Amino acid sequence: MGKTKDFSLTCPIPLDQYPNMQIAHGGGGKLMNNMIEMMFLPAFDNEILNTRHDGAVVNFADSKIAFTTDSYVVSPLFFPGGDIGKLAVNGTVNDLAMCGARPLYISIGLIIEEGFPTETLWRVINSLKESAEIAGVKVVTGDTKVVEKGKGDGIYINTSGIGIIEKDILVSPSEVRPGDAILLNGDIARHGIAIMTLREGLEFETKIQSDSAPLAEPVLKLISEGIEIHCMRDLTRGGLASALVEISQVSNTHIQIDEAAIRLNNEVRGVCEILGLDPLHVANEGRFIAFVNPKDSEKALQIMREHDKDVSLIGFVKDDSQTIVTMKNLLGTNRIVDMISGEQLPRIC
Amino acid sequence: MGKTKDFSLTCPIPLDQYPNMQIAHGGGGKLMNNMIEMMFLPAFDNEILNTRHDGAVVNFADSKIAFTTDSYVVSPLFFPGGDIGKLAVNGTVNDLAMCGARPLYISIGLIIEEGFPTETLWRVINSLKESAEIAGVKVVTGDTKVVEKGKGDGIYINTSGIGIIEKDILVSPSEVRPGDAILLNGDIARHGIAIMTLREGLEFETKIQSDSAPLAEPVLKLISEGIEIHCMRDLTRGGLASALVEISQVSNTHIQIDEAAIRLNNEVRGVCEILGLDPLHVANEGRFIAFVNPKDSEKALQIMREHDKDVSLIGFVKDDSQTIVTMKNLLGTNRIVDMISGEQLPRIC
Repeated sequence: MGKTKDFSLTCPIPLDQYPNMQIAHGGGGKLMNNMIEMMFLPAFDNEILNTRHDGAVVNFADSKIAFTTDSYVVSPLFFPGGDIGKLAVNGTVNDLAMCGARPLYISIGLIIEEGFPTETLWRVINSLKESAEIAGVKVVTGDTKVVEKGKGDGIYINTSGIGIIEKDILVSPSEVRPGDAILLNGDIARHGIAIMTLREGLEFETKIQSDSAPLAEPVLKLISEGIEIHCMRDLTRGGLASALVEISQVSNTHIQIDEAAIRLNNEVRGVCEILGLDPLHVANEGRFIAFVNPKDSEKALQIMREHDKDVSLIGFVKDDSQTIVTMKNLLGTNRIVDMISGEQLPRIC
Repeated sequence: MGKTKDFSLTCPIPLDQYPNMQIAHGGGGKLMNNMIEMMFLPAFDNEILNTRHDGAVVNFADSKIAFTTDSYVVSPLFFPGGDIGKLAVNGTVNDLAMCGARPLYISIGLIIEEGFPTETLWRVINSLKESAEIAGVKVVTGDTKVVEKGKGDGIYINTSGIGIIEKDILVSPSEVRPGDAILLNGDIARHGIAIMTLREGLEFETKIQSDSAPLAEPVLKLISEGIEIHCMRDLTRGGLASALVEISQVSNTHIQIDEAAIRLNNEVRGVCEILGLDPLHVANEGRFIAFVNPKDSEKALQIMREHDKDVSLIGFVKDDSQTIVTMKNLLGTNRIVDMISGEQLPRIC
């Protein structure tokens, strides 16, 4: 936190090993994490970026503001439960919420491929409009670029957002401490599996829907009700596992979770088994974890239950000196939870 | 300004005429303007977006903040006088400056094509780092996506930025009024022509350099010295002509400029003649116009001259009821200045 990073004009990634960017460099797992730690943090070294939070928290006179950015390259553009427009609004709104901020304004930057159907663009714009209305944010600025056919893939969307932190709270991975209860607002892995079943052409009786949803409302309720929240994180690329491992590493803590407490839709479980995917690594777009003071965990679960029925307490931060994530599985034994190394689901968001 | 736009679920762009997106929809000319007016403004209708400024100005408690976004898809990535990283920082910093804001924080969103050389990425990161330092902004948040080979073009960069408006001034196209003097901070068309000569393989004794530069310093000096500025605009895609036409349309004014007062580098003029380009339509990345109260124009020129030697007063807002831009050319006759309709220089920024 805040210590000066080494900066060298020589590329810090071993070029003989990684001469070129791989899909996994954008996968939310180890390779991406290494790139961020070796390239981005040393280059742009500053205390705000170094917190490694979902967004930046900055001060303006008496106001504390959260600021975040995300690009969306999901393929296909439309899927059960959502589309690129809904993802682009909710993803950015959720990053602000994870900073404890009320999302207020977003920007939209479009990179459109030449030949993209105008009507499809209009559908995407409509989804952006509707999602912004539901999330209660205004689209206040934007930008459009068009690239030649073959130099894009339909449409890529960047949304950046700003929100206001109304209560003077500090929500950050570095605030996590032993004893914290870890709460989760629903079943996991639905977004990633909704997209994979579409891509793989798998058919089920009921369509698996993405969980894409805005999260500011339950989060702001937790804050206004005085729950002592130390950290929050939405479970996007890399899934629950990546979020937990990153928080464990930044806070130097041992996080222990309980597999039995983690909800999984039966069909999602089935697809994971067919495709050989670990649901802990699969992306979500409407799920978050909150690290709270254990004295508040029951009240927090009640509040979260007003918005999502399947909330649960999935684990605790242990009081030992390890920096690790472990999970007690259904057989009662413990296993280490790690980030995924490569990339199991490209273009998921 | 601020009036409710019609919104329809039916695509407002005539699909028989424009079934697909064309390169020109991102060109900063008429087609892009139509798309913004017909699709984006009605969908996201709000007073802040409707000002059609380079960035959004929003209030947070006692603070007035500017917020802006831009994606950069320039090709090639490196060119005389700059590269995509320098453009991405300066472009966003300049949009904030055009709102009268001191740029403070930027985000960086990367969309990288699989196979992109890691070392080239490091060069781009270095350029982003250096440009941010020169412009005095901190990179506080970011995002990285990697798309499959053939679905991108090396690297696309989105930067969004926030800045603070320290003085209670209103700088916006709608503030332009008859009598305003129009000041320009240097020769035009160098950025676009630097890229075109590189693409076309044209050779000259001296390389034409992009004018990419951060503009906050002269702008903040104008403000702190009390110059009564009504509007500012940096002259990017669409060039000087597009900026003037858009401001004329938003403010319902007649803008008259004088060709003799507009500086043009001789080699840039030569290339424009060879390629049949109107320098008024060619992109710049370090040039801006300021509409100021005419009583302040001499003092403003002096301040601007401390940063750029070739500043000039290029025209005035006339006191008649036309909404038009006219230019007195070198022969003394007037011609109408219009936005370019299609796209003369794709992927310029």
